[in-house]
Amino acid sequence: MCTAATFHTKDHYFGRNLDLEFSYHEQVTVLPRNRTVPMRVMEDMKQHYAMIGMAFVVDGFPLYYDATNEHGLSMAGLNFPGNAYYAPVCDGKDNVASFEVILWLLGQCRTVAEAREKIENMNICDIVFSPELPASPLHWMLADREECVVLEQTKSGLRVHENPVGVMTNNPTFDYHMTHLADYMNVSGDPGVNRMMPQTELNQYSRGMGGFGIPGDLSSASRFVKVAFTKMNSVSGSGESESISQFFKILGSVEQQRGCCRLGKDENGNEQCEYTIYSSCCNMDKGIYYYTTYENSQITGVNMHHTDLDGTELTVFDLVKGQQIRMEN
Amino acid sequence: MCTAATFHTKDHYFGRNLDLEFSYHEQVTVLPRNRTVPMRVMEDMKQHYAMIGMAFVVDGFPLYYDATNEHGLSMAGLNFPGNAYYAPVCDGKDNVASFEVILWLLGQCRTVAEAREKIENMNICDIVFSPELPASPLHWMLADREECVVLEQTKSGLRVHENPVGVMTNNPTFDYHMTHLADYMNVSGDPGVNRMMPQTELNQYSRGMGGFGIPGDLSSASRFVKVAFTKMNSVSGSGESESISQFFKILGSVEQQRGCCRLGKDENGNEQCEYTIYSSCCNMDKGIYYYTTYENSQITGVNMHHTDLDGTELTVFDLVKGQQIRMEN
Amino acid sequence: MCTAATFHTKDHYFGRNLDLEFSYHEQVTVLPRNRTVPMRVMEDMKQHYAMIGMAFVVDGFPLYYDATNEHGLSMAGLNFPGNAYYAPVCDGKDNVASFEVILWLLGQCRTVAEAREKIENMNICDIVFSPELPASPLHWMLADREECVVLEQTKSGLRVHENPVGVMTNNPTFDYHMTHLADYMNVSGDPGVNRMMPQTELNQYSRGMGGFGIPGDLSSASRFVKVAFTKMNSVSGSGESESISQFFKILGSVEQQRGCCRLGKDENGNEQCEYTIYSSCCNMDKGIYYYTTYENSQITGVNMHHTDLDGTELTVFDLVKGQQIRMEN
Amino acid sequence: MCTAATFHTKDHYFGRNLDLEFSYHEQVTVLPRNRTVPMRVMEDMKQHYAMIGMAFVVDGFPLYYDATNEHGLSMAGLNFPGNAYYAPVCDGKDNVASFEVILWLLGQCRTVAEAREKIENMNICDIVFSPELPASPLHWMLADREECVVLEQTKSGLRVHENPVGVMTNNPTFDYHMTHLADYMNVSGDPGVNRMMPQTELNQYSRGMGGFGIPGDLSSASRFVKVAFTKMNSVSGSGESESISQFFKILGSVEQQRGCCRLGKDENGNEQCEYTIYSSCCNMDKGIYYYTTYENSQITGVNMHHTDLDGTELTVFDLVKGQQIRMEN
Repeated sequence: MCTAATFHTKDHYFGRNLDLEFSYHEQVTVLPRNRTVPMRVMEDMKQHYAMIGMAFVVDGFPLYYDATNEHGLSMAGLNFPGNAYYAPVCDGKDNVASFEVILWLLGQCRTVAEAREKIENMNICDIVFSPELPASPLHWMLADREECVVLEQTKSGLRVHENPVGVMTNNPTFDYHMTHLADYMNVSGDPGVNRMMPQTELNQYSRGMGGFGIPGDLSSASRFVKVAFTKMNSVSGSGESESISQFFKILGSVEQQRGCCRLGKDENGNEQCEYTIYSSCCNMDKGIYYYTTYENSQITGVNMHHTDLDGTELTVFDLVKGQQIRMEN
Repeated sequence: MCTAATFHTKDHYFGRNLDLEFSYHEQVTVLPRNRTVPMRVMEDMKQHYAMIGMAFVVDGFPLYYDATNEHGLSMAGLNFPGNAYYAPVCDGKDNVASFEVILWLLGQCRTVAEAREKIENMNICDIVFSPELPASPLHWMLADREECVVLEQTKSGLRVHENPVGVMTNNPTFDYHMTHLADYMNVSGDPGVNRMMPQTELNQYSRGMGGFGIPGDLSSASRFVKVAFTKMNSVSGSGESESISQFFKILGSVEQQRGCCRLGKDENGNEQCEYTIYSSCCNMDKGIYYYTTYENSQITGVNMHHTDLDGTELTVFDLVKGQQIRMEN
Repeated sequence: MCTAATFHTKDHYFGRNLDLEFSYHEQVTVLPRNRTVPMRVMEDMKQHYAMIGMAFVVDGFPLYYDATNEHGLSMAGLNFPGNAYYAPVCDGKDNVASFEVILWLLGQCRTVAEAREKIENMNICDIVFSPELPASPLHWMLADREECVVLEQTKSGLRVHENPVGVMTNNPTFDYHMTHLADYMNVSGDPGVNRMMPQTELNQYSRGMGGFGIPGDLSSASRFVKVAFTKMNSVSGSGESESISQFFKILGSVEQQRGCCRLGKDENGNEQCEYTIYSSCCNMDKGIYYYTTYENSQITGVNMHHTDLDGTELTVFDLVKGQQIRMEN
Repeated sequence: MCTAATFHTKDHYFGRNLDLEFSYHEQVTVLPRNRTVPMRVMEDMKQHYAMIGMAFVVDGFPLYYDATNEHGLSMAGLNFPGNAYYAPVCDGKDNVASFEVILWLLGQCRTVAEAREKIENMNICDIVFSPELPASPLHWMLADREECVVLEQTKSGLRVHENPVGVMTNNPTFDYHMTHLADYMNVSGDPGVNRMMPQTELNQYSRGMGGFGIPGDLSSASRFVKVAFTKMNSVSGSGESESISQFFKILGSVEQQRGCCRLGKDENGNEQCEYTIYSSCCNMDKGIYYYTTYENSQITGVNMHHTDLDGTELTVFDLVKGQQIRMEN
């Protein structure tokens, strides 16, 4: 499914893995301030903050998977099947369709605190983008430079969870993941310590044995634990190269390799596999969006400030998808 | 520590992660056929097969970490502390120092079968390269296009283990890893199956739940299981780009992120961390050596056939280590 | 903490482990139909169903830990710290103190269905038994011959969860346990199956390898998985001896051995350990309550029908606590 | 399969679980000093130390599963299929058939040290007891009050392993178990400690979370870890009742419940299950052999010193197998 994370060195970073069995035609997309965003129930947003992110653009409308606005507020939608609940339009509420949520919040808020206020009156409503594009069941991770939260609307209502770990995956709910994380509290990046039977010598035959117990499968609950462990123990220099290198390593720790998460056969008898379509890392301070794809491990970057942020047209960049090998001879 | 793997699509690939807390000045190094390889006990090898690989070159002598020769025979040394045993020089045996093993076998053998014959009379002897460079305790993975074996010399003697999985890490011995691997046999890349209590519905809340139980820590035993699972379930197209992409994903599944395997403080009070210095993937058929480094995720390649393989001088390529970001604007 | 389970062969069984670091003076206690049960807010119950179970009797009031009534309806309270919420007395509701819940439901209901109706208007209120006996934070498992449910009152309200597995432990909530149980769905009582890499032979070196992955620690989440696995895979003859033998084995699978769950030192500097004070198994059809204690592995039984169920006095039986060893010579 | 353990309080205890899918007609059997033990290759033992243990007696010959002699030296045979190797009779060696090993060593040695000397010249030879009773593939745990060792004869020869943990199960070899045990070194009987991300609060929702990671399945490798953890953390009073209670809890931690280790169907289509046929605990100091059976949880005891140890006839006691329930009314 998907994994999102924040990471802070000197600058602040936000990004995600998108794990699916297929790719839409997603592009790095910059939405400038004066591009009208038509809304289904709410008034159209004629002016709003500019943002950059990964989107599938349909008829000029950017369906963002994840984005960062010019103030650094960042947001990613993650699959939440079976738990996400989109309610009927409700009078007196700000009715926002699931595909509008990122635009609505990043378009109007500079911080998580501002977003919390917006969310208070929000109802994520059950309007679909089009009959061909039914609503994906999602929850969202939202972060600024200081704070990270998770936004979940289930049958029990819309909740904003403080997220002290700054990572998110998919099902179950955020509450579950945080409770489950506690199971692994004894695990450490330090060498193993014989707490089991201190009176007897045990042979620490390998480095890394303090981490024994960390799960390595690709289920959402295990990815949450693994990526939380990797992020919270990460050590990095503070420069841009070192920071984004470390960020992509954090996401790499829960990357889905093609073949390891099979879904059964499609109608043509082809085995389908979920894998990491792309990994992204956005510098929240500088508005630079970096990404890699499954078959292109070189990092490609797009700087939102190198586009006309006061314009009215989307700027889109096709993904560079083939391996960009640098041959030395 | 380290991980090695083979992978076959249309072509055949061999590579490894080098996991350490520091880097020597290793370079991609091509040894041509007529470069004399001085041997400590055996007769110098004046003519031998050419090879390409990663080496620390000291006074013109290539200390290979891993290499592939012109016939595709490939070999990597992996740390084996506490178990590796280098014996005194023994009359009547082919006495080969640990740092000569790769050169000795890849210099003279085209296949694993030929190497097995050479190994029969081999004694890995306890001669050091220099007082400043004591012998690393190693075992080796050796593969051609058909077969993969592990070479271990312990106090019990020198053994060649058939390796049906085609991956290797560090301690304990290969026998241990294969026995331990069986613990995880029920795990699968397919969706979860309710074998626990088929009469009761359990909610498969995530994709990938058939893989629950795969370990994700960085110890050598857990990396063996994880990389074996990833490799044996890998699905890839057969082209060069797809194949090497998948290969680096296999190695990426057991990559060591900086901070997750801490070693304690060095004499200056700095926390030391083991991390993946480089990852390599050699096309055994074409003699192209690809690599990435911890901070350069772009793949760099060197083709041994683009050097003078009949020459007498090493051709060396410094590693490209900083992130090679492709900015789109 | 605690574990409860149901088990059905020809007859129906209900029981639990009580895991604590100390023992009150609990006794097997029969409450006859005409013993008035004084209630704090509700009207006293002058006539009610008779029941048998384990209780700490204070001033003639049976504080039941678990009990079974004459119709087989059975209930056990299990520790639920941090999650249990006892609300202020609320007009219009049936206000039942936590220590009255078992008496209230088992006194008036013959089945889970009847209990569900009672629960609909129930408010578990925050009245304590006495200043010396503050309310334990509890949730309850309730079962008849057909059905099993879990009753939890948290800040979100009072909920009755259908329990298809028929086991319960402590924190987190029942919902969590059922979601978490799904992680282990691939595990089986059957021999291991090589689903990981069917093309490679793995050595099934032991029986029982289909069960690899089942947790064995004493945390409540792990005990839930282990006891659910054990119960759902249990095979037993249908006679009374075989059935209760198997029942005690099910509970034994999550028994807490003294020393394995340490709590730190008490005020006198003595290490405190949680361990299984007693295990019980009540035949719901026959009204016979069986138990063992940590130091008495012989099963002791009390038959409620051998007491005067129409009486007005409690019948109590001190626990037989020392090992009852049968010496053969 | 099986589990053996030692445990010391004021006195010293040795015992085992026998896990099989069926029971021979085993009996508690006392071998007096003057009962001739006929040997297949070695000279018959006309005088020897007396011993008590569990044996299947065939034509007056006690096939001991486990036994303790009058000096406290104790030994148990445990299944070791695929690894045990019984060699051809070898001149110059003490050729002892596998079914004679316990008698040979316990008959002649008072301590492990004395047994080590005997073992030095021993060859466990491939003679079967009878065509109907082929040799079980075994390794043995041997202990006196001070020391515990494991005896394994594989194709690599006969080895005596120092056993600092004092527990043993089945496959793989003892070396494997001790290496594997180190994987769990971070696990503890103490409360969980947040070593994973100390800067973030994790909710320790249950007691016992320091033990998270201990395996709970019935495979021999997992039972080794679980029983080692339980034993090494055991806390017990020093009296006989407390000590043997704790000992049976240690064995109970790896008990096999019927249905949880299925073996497939027998020739009549009946599902076969391995389960714990009996558990034993011998007081090595007093020569009292205690046991329970799967369906009799009461402890039964036999005191070797209450038989005529100078006699020439075996004293046998049928097992008490049905539940010995103590009805209180």
